[in-house]
Amino acid sequence: MARPVPLSGFPEWLPEGRAVETHLLEVLTSTFELYGYAGIETRAVEPLDALLSKGETSKEVYVLRRLQAEDGVEPSSTDQLGLHFDLTVPFARYVAENSGRLAFPFKRYQVQKAWRGERPQDGRFREFTQADLDVVAPDTLPAHYEVEVPVVVAAAFERLRAIGVPPVRIAVNNRRLAQGFYEGVGLADVDGTLRVIDKLDKIGPEGVRAALQAEVGASPEQAQACLDLASITGSDASVADAVLALGVRTPLLEQGLQELITLVEGAQAQVPGVVVADLKIARGLDYYTGSVYETTLVGHEALGSICSGGRYDSLVSDGSHTYPGVGMSVGVSRLVSRLLRDGLVQASRGVPTAVLVAVIDEERRAVSDAIAGRLRARGIPTEVAPSAAKFGKQIRHADRRNIPYVWFPAGEGAAGDGEVKDIRSGDQVAADPDGWLPPEADLRPQVRPAD
Amino acid sequence: MARPVPLSGFPEWLPEGRAVETHLLEVLTSTFELYGYAGIETRAVEPLDALLSKGETSKEVYVLRRLQAEDGVEPSSTDQLGLHFDLTVPFARYVAENSGRLAFPFKRYQVQKAWRGERPQDGRFREFTQADLDVVAPDTLPAHYEVEVPVVVAAAFERLRAIGVPPVRIAVNNRRLAQGFYEGVGLADVDGTLRVIDKLDKIGPEGVRAALQAEVGASPEQAQACLDLASITGSDASVADAVLALGVRTPLLEQGLQELITLVEGAQAQVPGVVVADLKIARGLDYYTGSVYETTLVGHEALGSICSGGRYDSLVSDGSHTYPGVGMSVGVSRLVSRLLRDGLVQASRGVPTAVLVAVIDEERRAVSDAIAGRLRARGIPTEVAPSAAKFGKQIRHADRRNIPYVWFPAGEGAAGDGEVKDIRSGDQVAADPDGWLPPEADLRPQVRPAD
Repeated sequence: MARPVPLSGFPEWLPEGRAVETHLLEVLTSTFELYGYAGIETRAVEPLDALLSKGETSKEVYVLRRLQAEDGVEPSSTDQLGLHFDLTVPFARYVAENSGRLAFPFKRYQVQKAWRGERPQDGRFREFTQADLDVVAPDTLPAHYEVEVPVVVAAAFERLRAIGVPPVRIAVNNRRLAQGFYEGVGLADVDGTLRVIDKLDKIGPEGVRAALQAEVGASPEQAQACLDLASITGSDASVADAVLALGVRTPLLEQGLQELITLVEGAQAQVPGVVVADLKIARGLDYYTGSVYETTLVGHEALGSICSGGRYDSLVSDGSHTYPGVGMSVGVSRLVSRLLRDGLVQASRGVPTAVLVAVIDEERRAVSDAIAGRLRARGIPTEVAPSAAKFGKQIRHADRRNIPYVWFPAGEGAAGDGEVKDIRSGDQVAADPDGWLPPEADLRPQVRPAD
Repeated sequence: MARPVPLSGFPEWLPEGRAVETHLLEVLTSTFELYGYAGIETRAVEPLDALLSKGETSKEVYVLRRLQAEDGVEPSSTDQLGLHFDLTVPFARYVAENSGRLAFPFKRYQVQKAWRGERPQDGRFREFTQADLDVVAPDTLPAHYEVEVPVVVAAAFERLRAIGVPPVRIAVNNRRLAQGFYEGVGLADVDGTLRVIDKLDKIGPEGVRAALQAEVGASPEQAQACLDLASITGSDASVADAVLALGVRTPLLEQGLQELITLVEGAQAQVPGVVVADLKIARGLDYYTGSVYETTLVGHEALGSICSGGRYDSLVSDGSHTYPGVGMSVGVSRLVSRLLRDGLVQASRGVPTAVLVAVIDEERRAVSDAIAGRLRARGIPTEVAPSAAKFGKQIRHADRRNIPYVWFPAGEGAAGDGEVKDIRSGDQVAADPDGWLPPEADLRPQVRPAD
């Protein structure tokens, strides 16, 4: 076969890149677990009608068919399966299917691939890994979970700074606040107004002003009021003063504003400096009903949001209860592709191996295997050299992989188990495979800021 | 929406089951890493023509199409994408695509889902997780890797016995030995003979005898010789005596026999009692050229092989080199579904949470959040109670999830940070969230043999 070429939109990493992704996922999921979120997985497919009822543009869904259906009959549209385009729709279905067997509030995280047949571009893929966390509860969900979810995400990204991931800014807003405000100034088309405001970064304030007048029938004064609201940012109670200074008051606005202030103050107390109220945040999806979140990597704002979400009230239902929820979704592939492209984070080696045991000659390979076995029994990742080449060649084998140590078994008739060489310093010492330990930093590949 | 129903062939686990699967995967992958295998992932899709050239029955492949192709033009068959049905075909393509950027011998593991549109039945799914490990090298691959791969698998399963996974038997054979023997007795149709022998467990010796005569034109004597060979098992050099006692000698047979003895003796030295030569093992796939492997769970033989593989010489090529390799693939979904169905392994809880911090009243939720934050800072998975219900109800919340500890913050005006209660024993002590630690066994969910 000729050398295959990559498929656009289906990213893959070399082992060094995968080591970065794996470490990043370990930090994310271990942080989620610290807050009590349990990991689950769902199947990759959902019935096509379930996928199409969730507001995605239908042309983005990948539909499956078996190459040769056994009976030649085309399946009906309800029997057809599609690949999930996010992890929220499958999670909603999982909760509804298993509601009798889950303990609520149910807090889960989920790391899986999703697929969208959209045009690939920087940071947008056809296959991508998401890391989601959500909380759902039957009938009512306390608002404090709207604080917890972005706090967990902020805590995870704070830990990621140690490996070279830039700081993040989690911008938050509240749908009730926006709806109450728009209704308060006399704009009935709340969804339409949100859709226009969502374009603020793209088309600018004058574009938004024109669109509000053309698309939702806003007067110049109404459009100005919306722009004034959208310009408010802050991370404390001053946000409330700024909103109320606009002179609009409705019960819904006041409820949303109270929730927003509770959110930024709570987040500020738990993870200072990450969560900011930003009243232009709208989020495209119309199922959000309370807090909404968008996360940018500081210095990489053009990449778009790397972690979004919000509160939803009617996404999940099992027929007898609805399950309001709140969640966020980390765009792992988008994030990792940027970290690797810009060389922000690197792995110290692409193999787990800490020690290469040299082989004197093929007849004595079992001696090297035994030394390797003793090192592994103590948790030290160890390989045995692929061939009994000259020692210089065996050392180069380790060096090319950044394996830090080479173990030389004792020659015929010599006492002991040989010597171990740190090939970076050249230091070589007699050592016992039942006692020798490399420094912790050499034991596993280190994922760290690039040099 | 009404309650959804499961899709046959697409298994999903409740959180407790997923905890078992996650732990099992951690044992597998950490063992693979101890032997120097690096983790990678490949995309879920391959070009359809690449999938169909690998000998799978074409009706098992799931083909993708976008629901609405942008230009209304049907893609040609070379542009069509299908979901991979194993991890070997994508690995071969990944190696060919990246051969200039990988260090060889390249040792990798890969844990991902695969899809086959076959009829679902016990242990056979349409979507399933595989954990593969392979070694490939350009042009030549030393035979000692044919020993290493089953040794790594055996070592991983030995570690899994601690959580209640039954012991395994890795049955091994050698294609060269079989081919040399069949040719030595005058049977030219080696693949046909292997296909018949592969049915021995299903149709029995008399069925095989008849099929060999009917399908590959064997004489009664040739059929008997094949059955005699297939009856040989053992885990030391006595296997060689038994084979040679059949009176057939060819150079190919002797090479294969030597490799087989090296394999069982090497495995016996490194992981005693797991790897057994069993000369009826044939493996259906025709790309194997040397060692072949099949693994059964002792006491669950009817489940079929839970980890198979072998040596292949011409599966991977980048146009200028071929990359012979050897690998095995653990059927994770098949294994986990049996462990859960028979209740062999259990997780001590379905949530990561070790401590639930009670909430006195909603006004003092921040006090509980702060205690939880201090516990988390020391690595203790902690949740805060969802509501300020009566303490009895908050304890029941923990009890229902098997969370072992409930922390009660100090009441108004009281000194200290409150008390922590082990809700299993009822013991309650004053404690400091900056110093208190639960026993290691309570810190994370334990995955262990079922009671």
